[in-house]
Amino acid sequence: MSSSISPLATPFPALPAIAGVVPHVARAQYKTWDRCDLTFVTLAEGTSVAGVVTQSKCPSPEVEWCRKALTLGTARALVVNAGNSNAFTGHRGRAAVEAIAARTAQHLGCQPSDVFVASTGVIGVPLPIDKAEAGLDAAFTATPCDWRAAAETIGTTDTYPKGAMTTAIVDGRTVTLVGIIKGSGMIAPDMATMLGFIFTDAAVTPGFLQAALNAANRNTFSCITVDGDTSTSDTVLAFATGAAGNAPLDSADSDGADAFAAALADLCAQLALLVVRDGEGATKLIEIAVTGAESDASAHRIAMSIANSPLVKTAIAGEDANWGRVVMAVGKAGEPAERDKLSIRFGETQVAREGLAVEGYDEAPVAAHLKGQEIEVGVDLGLGDGAATVWTCDLTHGYISINADYRS
Amino acid sequence: MSSSISPLATPFPALPAIAGVVPHVARAQYKTWDRCDLTFVTLAEGTSVAGVVTQSKCPSPEVEWCRKALTLGTARALVVNAGNSNAFTGHRGRAAVEAIAARTAQHLGCQPSDVFVASTGVIGVPLPIDKAEAGLDAAFTATPCDWRAAAETIGTTDTYPKGAMTTAIVDGRTVTLVGIIKGSGMIAPDMATMLGFIFTDAAVTPGFLQAALNAANRNTFSCITVDGDTSTSDTVLAFATGAAGNAPLDSADSDGADAFAAALADLCAQLALLVVRDGEGATKLIEIAVTGAESDASAHRIAMSIANSPLVKTAIAGEDANWGRVVMAVGKAGEPAERDKLSIRFGETQVAREGLAVEGYDEAPVAAHLKGQEIEVGVDLGLGDGAATVWTCDLTHGYISINADYRS
Repeated sequence: MSSSISPLATPFPALPAIAGVVPHVARAQYKTWDRCDLTFVTLAEGTSVAGVVTQSKCPSPEVEWCRKALTLGTARALVVNAGNSNAFTGHRGRAAVEAIAARTAQHLGCQPSDVFVASTGVIGVPLPIDKAEAGLDAAFTATPCDWRAAAETIGTTDTYPKGAMTTAIVDGRTVTLVGIIKGSGMIAPDMATMLGFIFTDAAVTPGFLQAALNAANRNTFSCITVDGDTSTSDTVLAFATGAAGNAPLDSADSDGADAFAAALADLCAQLALLVVRDGEGATKLIEIAVTGAESDASAHRIAMSIANSPLVKTAIAGEDANWGRVVMAVGKAGEPAERDKLSIRFGETQVAREGLAVEGYDEAPVAAHLKGQEIEVGVDLGLGDGAATVWTCDLTHGYISINADYRS
Repeated sequence: MSSSISPLATPFPALPAIAGVVPHVARAQYKTWDRCDLTFVTLAEGTSVAGVVTQSKCPSPEVEWCRKALTLGTARALVVNAGNSNAFTGHRGRAAVEAIAARTAQHLGCQPSDVFVASTGVIGVPLPIDKAEAGLDAAFTATPCDWRAAAETIGTTDTYPKGAMTTAIVDGRTVTLVGIIKGSGMIAPDMATMLGFIFTDAAVTPGFLQAALNAANRNTFSCITVDGDTSTSDTVLAFATGAAGNAPLDSADSDGADAFAAALADLCAQLALLVVRDGEGATKLIEIAVTGAESDASAHRIAMSIANSPLVKTAIAGEDANWGRVVMAVGKAGEPAERDKLSIRFGETQVAREGLAVEGYDEAPVAAHLKGQEIEVGVDLGLGDGAATVWTCDLTHGYISINADYRS
């Protein structure tokens, strides 16, 4: 964890234990630091798993491992390494993941394919197998820890630990969902990645868990950006132990499936915003809502063009209602747009309408809105019904300091 | 012009007059500043014109005007306004462009469609027609100026004036090409745009001039990026007066066409790099050469993904050989790439090869290279023959200061 906490940080909430899920942490000493850096979570037999991973064409071997293991749908353990992403390490990186899965399977008496592995940190240095194995051995015999300790241990350049929870009523029973997540940019100095892990006691088949996670991901993790730099290692995994004893949810038609899917989406949204709130150098959380596009996909691309524009992000850092830069970012997105139908608002105040500045709009509420920590930018294209909302943070001297003012 | 000159600036060169081209400057006072801000260039009868303009879906009315006038292929005048881009100003912006063209046509006794107009500066404020007309009247009677004065007058947040020249032998005669350009980001405080203007005494038909400009643009202006933020107003226009008296170049098969096209491409490359050297906050000029891609287009997209990555740009600002960030940017480009075939070099030193760090590579020449002002990053994908080279600058505190540390 960094010593300077994001001004947008929120306190770590009280999170309940999830039956069938036991987290542990240990010191593998992947770097020379005085902290835990290996997280080991055991999962009850019969746990379902679903996941979404980076679309990078240069993924880490952990991502490739998870992608393959996810096809089987069951999980007995999760291992997370912090301080070394093991990405771009060739055959030695693959060997490290295989060794971790094998050692864990040996401890638990399960198949290696039941072990999910994620790593975050420096790129290009093979994860040291001896440290990983020693860390795993220590974690296996360690006293279980709470969610806060696990959230701290998966962090790298995060400035605060991130977790969230929610519940749903399924089949007459209350099921609980807990998630922890880390991420602060693609990275920072030599770290990388957003890793998110969700645990629930609900009984859910792997197929429906995956469908619900895909749907939630589309409107949450896929809608956040700190710097537009997609990591080699991004991974979100959801584990369902079934300990709540509900009749298993196996499709969207199951009783309670809607409630579960909504709860999962809510949890993913909470976790995604926690990452943006810890965006490198962030001082403002920015919501960009695009409406009136030709399709939802088009709206999403336009919203991301705005959210990734360094000129929009620096203007908001400077508390400047520079809607000309928003016009620019709409124009460069390459999506259908008609300048003379475009409307823009900051907060509740319309500043441009149908291709023109709103003459004599009241600047006071706009200035007041921009002074706050949570900024809303609304863009209506006036073309159709397509809509999308994405979240980002401002671009400040803090981002430059974190990423340029050092030598690796 | 800004008072703090880019550390990458180069001196304004001695540029010859071009027969048939007469530049003038005047004070239209688009802003309250003590400088010329209107440039008026008269062109001999029979001047051919070609141009490339922004692909933004929200272009300025100037861009729309030029796009239409270019279909006719002839030009008698160029008017450039600095301090107000006239973009996103609805019907009032269109009226301003029409008024400028009409007033100029009246002065010169030509068609309004022979008048090319470009504007750069704040977005969203209609260009004041009275000031434009008074400025034009003043420019029309003013003493002609030199290229340096014109280059200074088209500038906004540029930190130094930018011009270049070259020559070619066509049909036994020496033809001369001169260009001036402005640009420093999409912008700065509330300014925008790259505007480039090329003048030659060669006789060239509009069709071949356009073909040669398109070809040059593909490898020069389309290969530079400061911040990835495409302006609403980007425009490059090339004017050929024919005063050199060569047999007109009307196709790639004309005698001397190759020499002319090569000279034009050389001039465009010089001008494009002058813009990158004045990138907002830039301290290093970065060349990114991608080879071994599946196609040239794929190589270009990968090179631009690297050039626009804030993490790559901040790493180079920090003189950090962080090739992991280059891997990340290749991976996120969405183009064909195979991690285990990827090789990366900084300067002449190979740091990663076939998906792995080069073990024990000599860090001294890499560190020395990164301390310089001109940085080369080479990426070979090992897949095919596709290649592309693009240029960008680093991302520094200077960029944030220029774009965030103020209120418009």
